[in-house]
Amino acid sequence: MEKILPFLPDRPSKPRTTGLTMVMDKGLSLREAEDFMSVGSEYTDFVKLGFGTSLITPGFGEKLKIYKKAGCIPYFGGTLFEAFIIRNMFKEFVDFIDKHEITLVEISDGSYEMSQETKLECIRIISRRGTVISEVGSKKKDIVYSPGEWVTMMKSELEAGSVKVIAEARESGTVGIYNDDGSVNLLLIQEISENVGLENVIWEAPLKSQQAWFIKHFGANVNLGNIAPNEIIPLESLRLGLRGDTFFQFLPDNLKA
Amino acid sequence: MEKILPFLPDRPSKPRTTGLTMVMDKGLSLREAEDFMSVGSEYTDFVKLGFGTSLITPGFGEKLKIYKKAGCIPYFGGTLFEAFIIRNMFKEFVDFIDKHEITLVEISDGSYEMSQETKLECIRIISRRGTVISEVGSKKKDIVYSPGEWVTMMKSELEAGSVKVIAEARESGTVGIYNDDGSVNLLLIQEISENVGLENVIWEAPLKSQQAWFIKHFGANVNLGNIAPNEIIPLESLRLGLRGDTFFQFLPDNLKA
Amino acid sequence: MEKILPFLPDRPSKPRTTGLTMVMDKGLSLREAEDFMSVGSEYTDFVKLGFGTSLITPGFGEKLKIYKKAGCIPYFGGTLFEAFIIRNMFKEFVDFIDKHEITLVEISDGSYEMSQETKLECIRIISRRGTVISEVGSKKKDIVYSPGEWVTMMKSELEAGSVKVIAEARESGTVGIYNDDGSVNLLLIQEISENVGLENVIWEAPLKSQQAWFIKHFGANVNLGNIAPNEIIPLESLRLGLRGDTFFQFLPDNLKA
Repeated sequence: MEKILPFLPDRPSKPRTTGLTMVMDKGLSLREAEDFMSVGSEYTDFVKLGFGTSLITPGFGEKLKIYKKAGCIPYFGGTLFEAFIIRNMFKEFVDFIDKHEITLVEISDGSYEMSQETKLECIRIISRRGTVISEVGSKKKDIVYSPGEWVTMMKSELEAGSVKVIAEARESGTVGIYNDDGSVNLLLIQEISENVGLENVIWEAPLKSQQAWFIKHFGANVNLGNIAPNEIIPLESLRLGLRGDTFFQFLPDNLKA
Repeated sequence: MEKILPFLPDRPSKPRTTGLTMVMDKGLSLREAEDFMSVGSEYTDFVKLGFGTSLITPGFGEKLKIYKKAGCIPYFGGTLFEAFIIRNMFKEFVDFIDKHEITLVEISDGSYEMSQETKLECIRIISRRGTVISEVGSKKKDIVYSPGEWVTMMKSELEAGSVKVIAEARESGTVGIYNDDGSVNLLLIQEISENVGLENVIWEAPLKSQQAWFIKHFGANVNLGNIAPNEIIPLESLRLGLRGDTFFQFLPDNLKA
Repeated sequence: MEKILPFLPDRPSKPRTTGLTMVMDKGLSLREAEDFMSVGSEYTDFVKLGFGTSLITPGFGEKLKIYKKAGCIPYFGGTLFEAFIIRNMFKEFVDFIDKHEITLVEISDGSYEMSQETKLECIRIISRRGTVISEVGSKKKDIVYSPGEWVTMMKSELEAGSVKVIAEARESGTVGIYNDDGSVNLLLIQEISENVGLENVIWEAPLKSQQAWFIKHFGANVNLGNIAPNEIIPLESLRLGLRGDTFFQFLPDNLKA
């Protein structure tokens, strides 16, 4: 990166705990994963192998190595965890992540509504052996939690051992923290940010309008997730004020006038 | 594929006659076609070189070989057939497919409204020399067939020699069997499935919501088409119940409870 | 390209001054840029490295060489120019383009509303050292120019030295010459085409419906911009009447009947 322009916001270097970007890989080939890393590794912290794709993507073991070698942390989408749990296969899940030397685990209940106590217990157990992030929010449109319920769940999961909580939006960006049309649920997001702590939350934000909104409201180093691999450079441009949507965001007042 | 989870639906292995997936290639480079095959060949049956792209994509002859070598069957989008026919160049079309050793031919009338008799005659002639699939439904919003007309056309074309009929939706998924907003035309689809036979139809389903709908209603092995190359792994995940939308679809009742 | 079908519209060969296609690269890797060129170089005239992505894309200097070697002209998105100008760094901008041997420069005011006189002065200065294209139209929804204002600005900029003017639409295709839903602003486009001259304008048209509209109204050789790299072959198919939307466009009347 050419440090040629002043007034760009500071971005922490890796490994970082804020300003995180989680990218979703839905089935890239090995060469596509290399391509993604060749431009995006510096800007990407976590790579989620989306939902159950790991079980059916040829060469996914090699792909894990590509991501690790490039300095990114790969992990399995929470739906894979849930697919094991609903089959009463917690032990097999742990064997599976151990076999693939996975150090980051997402624990979610977006598809399978386990009890909160079961989820917390899973977080406690897994967090003793590695890093846990947990996801809050249902993938279903007809299950709506109140802002207070979101906050309570998130705080409980952080206490149980999650290092970050993820606010659900799906790949489409139309459930959870967003309305049907992809616009943000402002009240909900304010409640979460004030009560859970901005540094503790990764907001799923697959749409550019959502990414721009979070950067404008919470700054360049808001944690964002469910970014498409080919949107990593556009997102970093947004974070730095190098795109129309956030062009004025980080400039001193005398330049804006 | 790691066969680690029970209760995944059975998928027939290739070559198969149900559970088919047709992917649309709109102009991939040779290396991109290799990438697609490296993860998707097991899950892809047919690769359509969309509309007239074959005539203008550099190296498309090499690309045909890549697909064949990987065990997939490439063919030309029906619009290419129609572009020859409207110019009264049926013989040149046959020469063109022979020259490129194409064994699967799509015969359609989505852009050029030929008479049904002309279409059936084309199906009869071409099916004597290779495999024919034919597409029913107009690409134009102002041409609407009744469910009965769809059924009659499809049955006639199967009798004339088509091995499958394709239900038109375009790349956008907003015409034919879908409404303007991409939602399914339920009555039409029921009429077709009951009267034409589910195994005989390939449903164009470019949008994830459409793919999920067909899998939920007709099972893992419904034939689907117009899938984008980078959606082949996500689609296979949907077929297997490894994604939120179809998560409960194939589980025994005692696990769902 | 196999010249097998008659009645395809003529397309000028490169370098051309009409029928131009400008593609937007938002952060391709080197290998992806090679892939894009391997199928698209013949159909692509200009490659815009979108907004400020040039400053943060690893290996972008090498990428410039890939595009030049393949016979395409790379340039930096206008937002990069504006990011320098708002910081009072015009000289540094010139140094930056000189360092990277950039021969085509986009001058725009879509994010930073400089005075028209400042913009014209920039066009005059830069056009003495290379080729300038300038963009008209704000990226913001709440800034709306009258058709007369569009025409006046475009004519002034052409007089000041721009070889083409670009009509703004953003990557989303929902501002400037388009309405919120992506449909065209017919009156505005007619005013521009009649008074500025069709050959002088590059219309940003990221959506297929927009591309088809321009080709149907202004012919195969209308200048179009903000095309995604993987849409270059589909767009060329539209230009040639090899896709449903423009299937009848270039056929003689006796074949249409």
